Amino acid sequence: MIADVSEMVTPDDIERAAERIGDRARRTPVIAHGQLTLKLELMQHAGSFKTRGAFNRVLGEADLPDAGLIAASGGNHGAALSYVGGSLGVPTEIFMPSTSPDIKRQNIERFGATVHVIEGYYDDAQAAADERRAETGAIQIHPYDHHDTVAGQGTMARELEEQVDGVDTIIVAAGGGGFIAGQAAWFRDRVRVVCVEPESSQCVRAALANGKPVPVPVSGVAADSLGAKQVGAAPWLVIRQFVDEAVVVADASIRDAQRELWNECRLIVEPGGAAALSAVRSGAYVPSPGERVVVVVCGSNADPATIVD
Amino acid sequence: MIADVSEMVTPDDIERAAERIGDRARRTPVIAHGQLTLKLELMQHAGSFKTRGAFNRVLGEADLPDAGLIAASGGNHGAALSYVGGSLGVPTEIFMPSTSPDIKRQNIERFGATVHVIEGYYDDAQAAADERRAETGAIQIHPYDHHDTVAGQGTMARELEEQVDGVDTIIVAAGGGGFIAGQAAWFRDRVRVVCVEPESSQCVRAALANGKPVPVPVSGVAADSLGAKQVGAAPWLVIRQFVDEAVVVADASIRDAQRELWNECRLIVEPGGAAALSAVRSGAYVPSPGERVVVVVCGSNADPATIVD
Repeated sequence: MIADVSEMVTPDDIERAAERIGDRARRTPVIAHGQLTLKLELMQHAGSFKTRGAFNRVLGEADLPDAGLIAASGGNHGAALSYVGGSLGVPTEIFMPSTSPDIKRQNIERFGATVHVIEGYYDDAQAAADERRAETGAIQIHPYDHHDTVAGQGTMARELEEQVDGVDTIIVAAGGGGFIAGQAAWFRDRVRVVCVEPESSQCVRAALANGKPVPVPVSGVAADSLGAKQVGAAPWLVIRQFVDEAVVVADASIRDAQRELWNECRLIVEPGGAAALSAVRSGAYVPSPGERVVVVVCGSNADPATIVD
Repeated sequence: MIADVSEMVTPDDIERAAERIGDRARRTPVIAHGQLTLKLELMQHAGSFKTRGAFNRVLGEADLPDAGLIAASGGNHGAALSYVGGSLGVPTEIFMPSTSPDIKRQNIERFGATVHVIEGYYDDAQAAADERRAETGAIQIHPYDHHDTVAGQGTMARELEEQVDGVDTIIVAAGGGGFIAGQAAWFRDRVRVVCVEPESSQCVRAALANGKPVPVPVSGVAADSLGAKQVGAAPWLVIRQFVDEAVVVADASIRDAQRELWNECRLIVEPGGAAALSAVRSGAYVPSPGERVVVVVCGSNADPATIVD
């Protein structure tokens, strides 16, 4: 998929995205949790931030083909695109691998997309989606590597600033980088932006170390949402300039954060959504006394049975 | 338990409660859900609104005995009191029946109380708590029938009015009436207060029909949180004057609302916490066009396995 990488997403782009999306995305709440503020983006429609970017991306297309939208995804992107298609009345086809759990398929079908389950893994689903797209002329929506997608994700930071009086630091988990890039594009140098990745999926750290996106191996409990093989070109333009620090967390810390969020806040959070909190709890990021820290809880598509003892 | 029923809770009492409780209770968020606003009081510390009333009740005691706090409860009241005791450094003993599920015991123990599991049902646990109280001199905290408890619950309405611009109607589930009385005491005639009870536990409707609290039979899916046998005297002083309408919902509607809250908002809600939404969905309460309705989602102490398919 060729992304529009001609220029970096700006706060003005995010303002325009917020106007374009309007109230189609949910204003997600914040709560206090000890000294931290949690931004509960997991309560976004379809269960993750992806809905913001998908709305901005799709609404940015002047002419949508009759065949509508298409994507390969077994997770949050598929659910978000299904929600966006259903909400805008645009036909949507999602190709997912047979290895994805049933609960995820139901979550995508719920919002109206046609789901095709393809024998095999993600790459097999992608190949089937590519073939179908060649037939129908549907527009393929990439999960993170597009200027408009990054700008749409940035509307969360804009909203957060309206909700919280003074933010020193925002802690955000990263997969392919679209979400953290949106936040960093809004806050720029005004707020410290801390990137969190699992030890087993570190494409942002690899890009920062190499000065450019490079492929990395991915695995671990959060691989279904954070396991991108390489930072996207569009996110990278922002990340290289405005992400201040990139830390890693162990799978066990992520599991602990999931349990804490259930026991103390009654939130069912997927591993990728709990990674940012685990960075504080594990000491990967240590806030200074008085530092006003917002931790983003960004996705909920977990099976509760994997969290609640 | 003899409650202080000398006078009705006023907005001034609630102002004082809010000042007394301070930030010990969590400011719980609101979200838009279609045309409704949901007040997510299930994200209160210990998982329900009970924490507000318990703080105000305990902080209102000039001299707490060395033996601290005692109560019989298998549910939200026990968890809230455990949280309040733990938070204030006051010893707390909770007596619960052996018929309560294990998950509830863990939820009470988590916050620091000593839990005694008593063979039998709620009345057996209450008898054991009474015996223990006679020995130790601990102060027994009633779950709803006290002026200060009602005033504490009313701090939710006060907070809600700061968060939402214009409320026409608030829909609240009722058990013994302490929670709805708090909301009605704050809003008085300014906002329509709608009471929701399960078909199988209707002590508020029975009291309104009889002009005074009377005993009723209780059963059904929400009986663990809404199954009070009689409206409390302290809540009744408010309810008889400021509750505008009292409707009932079927157990099946409550289950549907639980599933909706999970599928569309990613919330794990106990049956009692989903009852208010089910009143709108079932048509028990039909908002007028343009009516600004707040539905209170008041408790989360459910086993997710009972909600998620």
